[in-house]
Amino acid sequence: MSEDELTHLAASGEANMVDVGDKAETVRTAVAGATVTMKPETLRIILAGDAKKGDVIGTARIAGIMAAKRTHELIPLCHPLMLTKVAVEIEPDQSLPGLRIRALARLTGRTGVEMEALTAASVTALTIYDMAKAVDKGMRIGDVTLIEKTGGKSGDWRTE
Amino acid sequence: MSEDELTHLAASGEANMVDVGDKAETVRTAVAGATVTMKPETLRIILAGDAKKGDVIGTARIAGIMAAKRTHELIPLCHPLMLTKVAVEIEPDQSLPGLRIRALARLTGRTGVEMEALTAASVTALTIYDMAKAVDKGMRIGDVTLIEKTGGKSGDWRTE
Amino acid sequence: MSEDELTHLAASGEANMVDVGDKAETVRTAVAGATVTMKPETLRIILAGDAKKGDVIGTARIAGIMAAKRTHELIPLCHPLMLTKVAVEIEPDQSLPGLRIRALARLTGRTGVEMEALTAASVTALTIYDMAKAVDKGMRIGDVTLIEKTGGKSGDWRTE
Amino acid sequence: MSEDELTHLAASGEANMVDVGDKAETVRTAVAGATVTMKPETLRIILAGDAKKGDVIGTARIAGIMAAKRTHELIPLCHPLMLTKVAVEIEPDQSLPGLRIRALARLTGRTGVEMEALTAASVTALTIYDMAKAVDKGMRIGDVTLIEKTGGKSGDWRTE
Amino acid sequence: MSEDELTHLAASGEANMVDVGDKAETVRTAVAGATVTMKPETLRIILAGDAKKGDVIGTARIAGIMAAKRTHELIPLCHPLMLTKVAVEIEPDQSLPGLRIRALARLTGRTGVEMEALTAASVTALTIYDMAKAVDKGMRIGDVTLIEKTGGKSGDWRTE
Amino acid sequence: MSEDELTHLAASGEANMVDVGDKAETVRTAVAGATVTMKPETLRIILAGDAKKGDVIGTARIAGIMAAKRTHELIPLCHPLMLTKVAVEIEPDQSLPGLRIRALARLTGRTGVEMEALTAASVTALTIYDMAKAVDKGMRIGDVTLIEKTGGKSGDWRTE
Repeated sequence: MSEDELTHLAASGEANMVDVGDKAETVRTAVAGATVTMKPETLRIILAGDAKKGDVIGTARIAGIMAAKRTHELIPLCHPLMLTKVAVEIEPDQSLPGLRIRALARLTGRTGVEMEALTAASVTALTIYDMAKAVDKGMRIGDVTLIEKTGGKSGDWRTE
Repeated sequence: MSEDELTHLAASGEANMVDVGDKAETVRTAVAGATVTMKPETLRIILAGDAKKGDVIGTARIAGIMAAKRTHELIPLCHPLMLTKVAVEIEPDQSLPGLRIRALARLTGRTGVEMEALTAASVTALTIYDMAKAVDKGMRIGDVTLIEKTGGKSGDWRTE
Repeated sequence: MSEDELTHLAASGEANMVDVGDKAETVRTAVAGATVTMKPETLRIILAGDAKKGDVIGTARIAGIMAAKRTHELIPLCHPLMLTKVAVEIEPDQSLPGLRIRALARLTGRTGVEMEALTAASVTALTIYDMAKAVDKGMRIGDVTLIEKTGGKSGDWRTE
Repeated sequence: MSEDELTHLAASGEANMVDVGDKAETVRTAVAGATVTMKPETLRIILAGDAKKGDVIGTARIAGIMAAKRTHELIPLCHPLMLTKVAVEIEPDQSLPGLRIRALARLTGRTGVEMEALTAASVTALTIYDMAKAVDKGMRIGDVTLIEKTGGKSGDWRTE
Repeated sequence: MSEDELTHLAASGEANMVDVGDKAETVRTAVAGATVTMKPETLRIILAGDAKKGDVIGTARIAGIMAAKRTHELIPLCHPLMLTKVAVEIEPDQSLPGLRIRALARLTGRTGVEMEALTAASVTALTIYDMAKAVDKGMRIGDVTLIEKTGGKSGDWRTE
Repeated sequence: MSEDELTHLAASGEANMVDVGDKAETVRTAVAGATVTMKPETLRIILAGDAKKGDVIGTARIAGIMAAKRTHELIPLCHPLMLTKVAVEIEPDQSLPGLRIRALARLTGRTGVEMEALTAASVTALTIYDMAKAVDKGMRIGDVTLIEKTGGKSGDWRTE
């Protein structure tokens, strides 16, 4: 591991959008996760009633999918990409207590989609916060991590 | 605390962008935090050398500020706002080890700016991840929380 | 009614974003409608099952709300506005057969919100088309109209 | 025709951005139409004088072309696409009376461009409404339909 | 003139979106200019024929107006603003030879609109370049300057 | 050189987004330049102190890179592109006095990237203006030109 590997920084230390033109077009997938920890009562409210669950969780999932498509507008050195698939899952986890998010991004292209998956997971979590903050301002978004990536020259990677 | 307080949900359970037209125009401030936990070596690389530090941290701060202005495009039920101030601070914290982020948003307006501060903190953290992921894919974004808010009818709030 | 009333056109005929700086800040509301006419079987599929109904109709409603906030990016001479409320309703109408959309936009400001309501209704309809086009490419979006507006110097207006 | 064909809905009924990574890259074209029905006097004003006609119709055409490029930001489950061509035509039709719009989108890619053509047609119509609403708030946007599509696995399709 | 006046830089030298919350809401106007210098033949082509002139110049003017509304998305430390008026004028100037652009932005608000006027002028010029580059890649955009500003605490300013 | 070469104009003179679907996918590069001329004292302030230099110049470079990715949203008839590389350099030039900008855009695709390089250079310059306008409103952006392009059917081109 050397400083040269900070590929966004040129030799002179300037931020840089790296050239991916020479990379091969392959199928690349990334899965990211996040959690939203909340009071048990907040989780109960979110889950109570079909319509309401549908709306908090359904709205957050749509927000995450839409955000993945805008990753290159938010993250300065990300390349614009033609994502072929984005999916977001949200499951209750009583042990937090709260909601557990998994976001998947896929592409046939020249650069990885880690940031797209992480952005989808983050905005899904932020939307859950927004929709429930009237009852619980102390919610905590955590564990925003890359879970796995496949494809590309650097090969597959999985969190330990 | 009742389900009625989930103000984004109408009586029928449908997601809704609540009417803030009757709220008073007051000065409203929100401060949010986030952390990026990484390997000690990754933190050393980010901090090594003025130019490089300037670029990772400076780029992430700009990304966070710009993202705050786009919160209403990302979070479905957020109102468009005329933010009067956004500031992002990033400090190293050897105890993580990693970087600690604080984002402030301020407004003279009719609705709070919690989501703007949280979005700024999240996108700052995502940008740090993007710029250092070549050396450390296992970085973890956490503790994305509201630290305090002031102004508005519901009054001041501070995390415990 | 004279050609001078085409307020977006200057005396010389050039397109223009009219000056609303002298208008009073008042509460302004607009309600727009739209329909999506489809095969009876398509409507049955959309309405069948809670989860599925939730998703087609819920997703379309979110899309419409989000689009209202971006009206000034889409319509060249619309002013950027701080909407205080956006709401979208979608109801089945067996007489079409299909779905009937109503979108409301509200603002305390210097210019009307007709275009925001019409944009919300249109994008809601387009999203319904997108989500059901695999079964029915012949769906027809129609009756995209302003239903009523209130507030502002020109006073209230209602479709006949 | 079965519910499985609602491809945006997963088995569990959740909204989903479908995977198009396995589809072949082919030339795909879609043509959509729309009408704006108005008072005869409104049509006369729009058509009167070269400069003015140029501006209402020219501005609306530009707005439609630009909107096609943003379809994936507006329609939640649309893929980002690299459109190779967008064209919009606007013709007067005294039988409405009003304006008749046709929008074409083309792509060499993995997914169809129906939504891009429909979005272009819709935003063209909305812009006409915006520019003439000072004289005629009762204008009606209708007949927003797919006229034909070519290319892709599902083959060609034409409205009957 | 002191370094403290670089108001976007905090005491510590970090880029910052300055707080304008304490500024008064006043009418603020800015006018910016730009030129596009080209071959005489290129200017002749642009001006030849009503329809063609309408399209190059009309399209560029629309692009400039729309860009003014997005200034805060492009310029990192600009505040989001509710512009009340944007106007762009484009005149031929045989002495360049080429086109001379003037863009005006106006606001009732807490911060100046210089950047909105300059962004409108720049994007108008870029659009002219785009539409005529097939015949003249050597066109030169120049003299992008603030011509005057009025309103605000710092008072009026005019280029010498 | 004939009027037919104004490829954005159809035979009838209407603005048009030209069809690039038949062009070959090749590596295409464009380099654009711009200058910001200012008072000697303004240049001294921008360059004084590592942190400050980092921030004005670093922020402007990030803004330029991000703007390149949004060119197709700003310039009405530009195609959406998947840029593989964007780089921006900013150097002091005492002979102006001021700052000299060079922006590079690269793509493996079907259409040139001149507008992306020019947009990056322009927005970089506008951001410098924004960050230093508190001390020098008379700064002048000039010499926004294409310096060279390579790739594509029309072959290489260099400014004389």
